[in-house]
Amino acid sequence: MATTKKTAKTETKSLEDLFLDGLKDLYYAEKKILRALPKMAKGAESEEVTAAFEKHRAETEGQVERLDQVFELFGKSARGKTCPAIDGILEEGSDILEEYKGAPALDAGLVAAAQAVEHYEIARYGTLIAWAEQLGKPEAVELLKATLDEETATDEALSALGEGGVNERALQQAA
Amino acid sequence: MATTKKTAKTETKSLEDLFLDGLKDLYYAEKKILRALPKMAKGAESEEVTAAFEKHRAETEGQVERLDQVFELFGKSARGKTCPAIDGILEEGSDILEEYKGAPALDAGLVAAAQAVEHYEIARYGTLIAWAEQLGKPEAVELLKATLDEETATDEALSALGEGGVNERALQQAA
Repeated sequence: MATTKKTAKTETKSLEDLFLDGLKDLYYAEKKILRALPKMAKGAESEEVTAAFEKHRAETEGQVERLDQVFELFGKSARGKTCPAIDGILEEGSDILEEYKGAPALDAGLVAAAQAVEHYEIARYGTLIAWAEQLGKPEAVELLKATLDEETATDEALSALGEGGVNERALQQAA
Repeated sequence: MATTKKTAKTETKSLEDLFLDGLKDLYYAEKKILRALPKMAKGAESEEVTAAFEKHRAETEGQVERLDQVFELFGKSARGKTCPAIDGILEEGSDILEEYKGAPALDAGLVAAAQAVEHYEIARYGTLIAWAEQLGKPEAVELLKATLDEETATDEALSALGEGGVNERALQQAA
């Protein structure tokens, strides 16, 4: 939240400030996702959903490294800034893990929760790419695009999992 | 959060429960977005960003009505369920309004915040469509698809606004 001290400076805040705030938001988000994915992988019923979360966990490590590099390109140390959006999105994933434990619909709910995470990242990386272009930072654009491509591919893979059997299995009533 | 009482029932939870939980989540989200958009419209610097938020506010009213109809198709009364994800995403929009007030980058930040909202909705409507198909509810699918198309078009319109001048104006340093 803005403090009185911050407000005094707002009028000089330009696109680079906005970009760096967004970068810190994503840095916090990626690190939090890195901690959440093993819990989701462990909680999933089916091997294919577990494998999808484990694969994305490994990818996320590389995405954090790319963010480190983008901070460097802007001459800044990498650091996060609390991101209430990802906190809320991941909280919904934890709720699914608790409320659907042992239920036929658990994996369908986990896949959906992961897609909400992916879409948040797709929105934020898309924005940061547009801003990095405007700021004349082509190397940052390339790094961010590499991650955006991975997030988009992950979202598509999750849709395919849902439609490829996970949603159908969720239809079953438990015995 | 799951309570002990809820846990006792989890094992019977199937895809329809998950669908209805998701519907309540979106109902809460749309109603909250309906209250947030006028503040964002009023806070924006440029007429074009204000107009985009006002247009989407009008659209959102229709989206709430479609959700009412989907609840009816499932024989349920429309009601919301607190959605920490949209709470967090909208909190980030409020922070932009405060922290960038009077700054050249304000509108670029607001457009980005609105795109995060759209992407959350795109993820959730996409999921509900897949589940409604699986549940054999073609009328619900049609209603949800009509809204998904609007959300996707809004996201694209916001990207075009950003790239069509809003991001460039954010580059200016205030005098």
